Amino acid sequence: MSSPEGIRPRRGFSRRRLLGYAGAGAAGAVGFAGGMGTARATDGPAEDPVESYSFHGAHQAGITTPAQDRVHFAAFDVTATSRAELVMLLKAWTSAAAEMTQGREVGDGTPLPYDAPPGDTGEALGLPPSRLTLTFGFGPSLFRDADGKDRFGLAERQPAALRRLPHFPADALRKERSDGDLCVQACADDPQVAVHAIRNLSRIAFGSAALRWSQLGFGRTSSTSTTQATPRNLFGFKDGTANLKAEEPTAVDEHVWVGADDDPRATWLAGGSYLVARRINMAIEPWDRTSLREQEQLVGRDRQVGAPLSGGKEFSEPDFSLKGSDGQPLVAVTSHVRLAHPTQNKGARMLRRGYNFTDGNDDLGRLDAGLFFIAYVRDPRTQYIPMQTKLSRDDGLMEYLEHTGSALFAVPPGVRKGGYLGDALLAR
Amino acid sequence: MSSPEGIRPRRGFSRRRLLGYAGAGAAGAVGFAGGMGTARATDGPAEDPVESYSFHGAHQAGITTPAQDRVHFAAFDVTATSRAELVMLLKAWTSAAAEMTQGREVGDGTPLPYDAPPGDTGEALGLPPSRLTLTFGFGPSLFRDADGKDRFGLAERQPAALRRLPHFPADALRKERSDGDLCVQACADDPQVAVHAIRNLSRIAFGSAALRWSQLGFGRTSSTSTTQATPRNLFGFKDGTANLKAEEPTAVDEHVWVGADDDPRATWLAGGSYLVARRINMAIEPWDRTSLREQEQLVGRDRQVGAPLSGGKEFSEPDFSLKGSDGQPLVAVTSHVRLAHPTQNKGARMLRRGYNFTDGNDDLGRLDAGLFFIAYVRDPRTQYIPMQTKLSRDDGLMEYLEHTGSALFAVPPGVRKGGYLGDALLAR
Repeated sequence: MSSPEGIRPRRGFSRRRLLGYAGAGAAGAVGFAGGMGTARATDGPAEDPVESYSFHGAHQAGITTPAQDRVHFAAFDVTATSRAELVMLLKAWTSAAAEMTQGREVGDGTPLPYDAPPGDTGEALGLPPSRLTLTFGFGPSLFRDADGKDRFGLAERQPAALRRLPHFPADALRKERSDGDLCVQACADDPQVAVHAIRNLSRIAFGSAALRWSQLGFGRTSSTSTTQATPRNLFGFKDGTANLKAEEPTAVDEHVWVGADDDPRATWLAGGSYLVARRINMAIEPWDRTSLREQEQLVGRDRQVGAPLSGGKEFSEPDFSLKGSDGQPLVAVTSHVRLAHPTQNKGARMLRRGYNFTDGNDDLGRLDAGLFFIAYVRDPRTQYIPMQTKLSRDDGLMEYLEHTGSALFAVPPGVRKGGYLGDALLAR
Repeated sequence: MSSPEGIRPRRGFSRRRLLGYAGAGAAGAVGFAGGMGTARATDGPAEDPVESYSFHGAHQAGITTPAQDRVHFAAFDVTATSRAELVMLLKAWTSAAAEMTQGREVGDGTPLPYDAPPGDTGEALGLPPSRLTLTFGFGPSLFRDADGKDRFGLAERQPAALRRLPHFPADALRKERSDGDLCVQACADDPQVAVHAIRNLSRIAFGSAALRWSQLGFGRTSSTSTTQATPRNLFGFKDGTANLKAEEPTAVDEHVWVGADDDPRATWLAGGSYLVARRINMAIEPWDRTSLREQEQLVGRDRQVGAPLSGGKEFSEPDFSLKGSDGQPLVAVTSHVRLAHPTQNKGARMLRRGYNFTDGNDDLGRLDAGLFFIAYVRDPRTQYIPMQTKLSRDDGLMEYLEHTGSALFAVPPGVRKGGYLGDALLAR
């Protein structure tokens, strides 16, 4: 199978088309370098339009995109010391992301010597794009290190809202699950495709950035579109019923996308968002020994249907004023649904995009499992932080929750054709 | 939503039918107790016959069943000290497995007080059966503890082949990822369904057995049916091309199912099998820096198509005698495909059923990832052990592999209606 020339052609076909491919022809080669790598080697349409999302656009994909079934989330520490190296990394990531989200191999079109490592690690060969989206963010530490030093000449453009999240009551954060200079959220319907993407981005980053922490999630816990049924979290309850949905563009504009005038120091972030990531361990075994009555009181909804305990169906608005025969509110004062409701939070809403996770078990046989919370907000200072401050203090569910990881990232707007991730911040 | 009687009906409908269900009616209640829990509350056929497999049969499901996409594998330590308690656990597991594999809730049909914990943890409500199979096994330590003590009066019926696997060269086993008294392999196309099953079995085991270790896998690395395409492992290569397939019943009888006369001490195992589990970490980053030539030489197949380097297509038999112009065999002497081939192993074959895994990363940013190897064999002493002894010593791939977990289990035959897991061993 080795060619005598020591060259093995690898072209810009989709991975799926390569299934029947065995080495002939040389048409369609497309260069990798220069941050341009979005041209399709073939002019035909995508094989299945619902299978892939464009990497380019006004906003990054993976935010209002209907939530895929799986996530592989990764945070990186930048080891490069010059802005030029950082820009090179972001350009290379841009090219690779544009390829992989279309189901193409990394570096496709570039014939590589047989004695070089393959351009793509290969485990997604033959798999469709699986609705892969790759969403990138910048952490506060990219702008200033722990000593306040301006690492890449970006400090004066650090958004005012991009600070490490405050310590919330009952936080039990682990350093090795928190923070990071850069992040990538890889969502796909096939975990092998999501893992392949993070692995190849890590590989491309070699020498410029190193994986700091990563998290796999397997069951989306929120819908981001009215076309999706509400999934269940590991407490067995529907989660995200009241989530912001892509079909509410006015609300998304108001609560998710950073506006052009939001922060005069960070106009580069207009059209972007903030990503809050929290690894929330659930005390599975104690929860499973709790009565259904107690569970529903803590959540404020019934388990079967997801209706508020004040009555109605899943999407009925809770009535916080209704009281039972005992004179107590039907939706308890300390219930999660009440404390998190916009009417109790000055109208604040979030676009949630979390996933369930299970990472084995501890020495006592307890599952290391819970919710990998992801939310996109326009301003964490008025949305996530005040809400979580209240939840951490008052939410009865907190007895069963432990926040073990935390990070905040500024998510730049989408990449224009010919541009690269964060170019409005980095190019000048 | 709470009923004034403090009773909430939960019935034997499939989880999916419950989607539109909101509390009325009381038909179809089916008792839980007694190890019988397999009657359907409704007499109609399953909603989608390809969505579920019966838990009952001559052999356990989940062995020759076409490999599902995901696995959650769990090993348990039995904490019960009497055989009666062990039997109770296995009966309860039998009932729950028969329910969950059909997409029903655990304990369905039994109305529970509202002030009791729910019978089922709930996170799979609304999800289809997702081809869930639950496959159970008994470890050597169930028969004798570390001091050789007969724990449950079963020692004289311990199969001769059921011993801890020997130490192989280069093993780097971790205790907390190895061994166990009992195991459950939960395979499904939806990881939430597999995780739900292990969680509910763990919950049922509370007080009788505790989770010892568990492993999630996300991409099957073998086909067990000719109807399935060969998947790829995290080295980017097709894996399991030469695997035993369900469509070879004679070979399956010869290599997988324990025969009635195989072991006079363990006639209870006839129709069962042995399950070898190995957690094999892959050195992802060094591999990704290896040339394609080197990778293909180590594997003995080309990466794109999966054909042996002696030529042909994926399913062509390798020709170990063919030499290249340099006088060396085209399929190298130390290549994986040669060392693992039946002709090099006295005809031994295995039914492999492994999965890729990724469990985060270490402090240096290296992925904790690899292959969770599962194989079913009729006798590990003539199949897995000699082959792995040779591979551990000679396989060039071993430079990129580290075995970090290991276990061997005897997998009893399938459960007859009215019977329970392992009844031929335990009832007398």
